[in-house]
Amino acid sequence: MRDFSHDHRWLSINTATVRKQRGQDWPLPQILDACAQRGIRAISPWRDQVAAAGLDTIARQVQALGLELSGYCRGGMFTYTDAASKQAMRDDNRRALDEACTLNAACLVLVVGALPGALSGSPAHRDLAGARAQVTEGIAALLDDARERGLPLAIEPLHPMYAADRACINTLEQALDVCDALDPNNTGALGVAVDAYHVWWDPKLHQQIARAGRARLLALHVCDWLVPTTDLLNDRGMMGDGVIDLKALRASVEAQGYAGYSEVEIFSAANWWQRDGGEVLDTCIERHRRCV
Amino acid sequence: MRDFSHDHRWLSINTATVRKQRGQDWPLPQILDACAQRGIRAISPWRDQVAAAGLDTIARQVQALGLELSGYCRGGMFTYTDAASKQAMRDDNRRALDEACTLNAACLVLVVGALPGALSGSPAHRDLAGARAQVTEGIAALLDDARERGLPLAIEPLHPMYAADRACINTLEQALDVCDALDPNNTGALGVAVDAYHVWWDPKLHQQIARAGRARLLALHVCDWLVPTTDLLNDRGMMGDGVIDLKALRASVEAQGYAGYSEVEIFSAANWWQRDGGEVLDTCIERHRRCV
Repeated sequence: MRDFSHDHRWLSINTATVRKQRGQDWPLPQILDACAQRGIRAISPWRDQVAAAGLDTIARQVQALGLELSGYCRGGMFTYTDAASKQAMRDDNRRALDEACTLNAACLVLVVGALPGALSGSPAHRDLAGARAQVTEGIAALLDDARERGLPLAIEPLHPMYAADRACINTLEQALDVCDALDPNNTGALGVAVDAYHVWWDPKLHQQIARAGRARLLALHVCDWLVPTTDLLNDRGMMGDGVIDLKALRASVEAQGYAGYSEVEIFSAANWWQRDGGEVLDTCIERHRRCV
Repeated sequence: MRDFSHDHRWLSINTATVRKQRGQDWPLPQILDACAQRGIRAISPWRDQVAAAGLDTIARQVQALGLELSGYCRGGMFTYTDAASKQAMRDDNRRALDEACTLNAACLVLVVGALPGALSGSPAHRDLAGARAQVTEGIAALLDDARERGLPLAIEPLHPMYAADRACINTLEQALDVCDALDPNNTGALGVAVDAYHVWWDPKLHQQIARAGRARLLALHVCDWLVPTTDLLNDRGMMGDGVIDLKALRASVEAQGYAGYSEVEIFSAANWWQRDGGEVLDTCIERHRRCV
C-alpha cells in the first residue's frame, strides 16, 4: 500500500466538500485556487459549479494550475416515465460526457437514479426492478457515446438508504454485474467508483473489490460514517471521525493495482459546511495523511 | 397467495407500533385488550413492555385472550469487549429465550448487534469483520439453548444504515450464510425474520427468499419506506404510504410456503406515535387488508 503519511500527492477534493461555506457559495474558481495553493493536485467538480463559472473558464484554469480531475460529477439519473423525459435524460448525459472530455476527467461518475419522481417526493411507481432495467439500458446507450470519446464511465453504487430516490444500484456486486453484462471484455470503458460511505457496511466488500480488479476500479471516494448519523444525506463525517476502516479499504483496492487518487467527498450541513473553506481543505490534507 | 382483503386473520401487531402515543406510554395489557377487541389475533411484544407489566401477568392475559405471539422482541446484541460483558450478554439472551418460551412465542427475534459502544456514540473499534465473528459465535452458543427449549431463533438482517450501531448482519444472504453454517441440516431451529423495511432495496431479495425456503422463513414484518425519510430510526411509514412493493414481497415468501403472520412494526415518532393508539390499530387493519 502506498505511504500517504508524508505528502498529499494522491489527495483529490470533490468540490461539493466546500461548495457552500457558512451559507455562502464558494465559487469554483476560488476553490481551485485554494486547492492549488495547498499543493492539492486533483479535484472532482460538480456540473452546476462548472456551469456557474463557465466550462471554458474552468478548463483553462484547470490547465493553468496543473490540476487533474479524478472524476466528473455527474451523469446518470437514467430512469424515466415517458419518451420525452427519456430523451432529455439521454441528451443531458451526452452533454455531461462532453464536459468531462473538455475537462480531461479520468471518468464520468454515474449516480444512476431510482424510482422516477421519488427525489421530489412523488414516486411514479414502486417497480424497483423496472427502474433497474431502465438503468442498465441507459448505461448501455451512454457507453456507446463514452467509447467514442474514450471517456470511462464509473458506476457509483449508492448506499441502500438511497435506493428509492437517488440510485437503485446499491452494492458493488450489483454494479459489477452490470459492468460484466455491458462490457464483458473488460475494456476499461466501464467500471465502478468505490465510495467508502456507500459500501463500507457490505459483507462482500473485499470479495467484490477483488472481483472488480484493476480495470474496473476507476475511482476511490473517502469520508466517514458517523455514529450517530443524524441526516440521511448531509451528515457525512471527516475521515477519522467515524467507524469506517479506511486504511483497510484502500489496502484492498490497491491490492488490485489501483494507483489513483483518494477523493474526499463530504456532505456536512451542520459541521464542515459551517466552517471556513480553507480550514476544511487543511483538515482534509491532515486527515488524508493520517487516516486514509 | 392468501387473500387478505376480507379479514385480518393473519395480521400481527408488533407492540412497538403503539408503545408510546402522544408522549404517554400505552401499557402492554391495554394494548393487548385493544388488539383483542378488534379481532387482532397475534402480537409481538418487546421485553421491556413485558417486564413493566410482569411476565406472568402478560402470559396469563395472552392465554385468556387467545392471542398468539408471532415473535418475541428481542434477543441479540452479541458483540462485546471483555469477558464480563460477554457473560452478561449470554445470560441476558438465555433469559430472553425463557421469556419467549413462557409466552409461547413462535420465535425469538435476533437483532444481532454491531460495533460495541457505537449505539451510545462511543464505538470501541472499527473492526466490523471482528464484530461479525462475535455475532456468529454468539448465535451458535444461543442456538444450543434454543434447541433444548424447542424455541426457534430468527436472525433479522437490519438495513445497512444500522451496520455500525444496531446489527452487522445486513442482508438476507448474509443471514442465510450464518444459518447454513450453524444449522446445516436445516432443522427449523434457526432461520430469518424478513422485515420489509430492512430488505426491500436488495437486488437479491427474491433470490435469497427462494434460497431460504419454508423452513428458514420464520417471520414477515411489514411497514413502508417513506420518501423522503427524515430520520434513520423513527420515520417508518404505514403500509401503502411509501415505496415498498409489499404484495410482491408477501407473494415471494408465500411461494416458499410461508403461511404465518404479517407483523406490522412501525417506529414513527412524528406521525403514528402522535395519534390515538386505537386509531393506529384501526389503520393497521385497513392497510393490512388493502396494501399487504
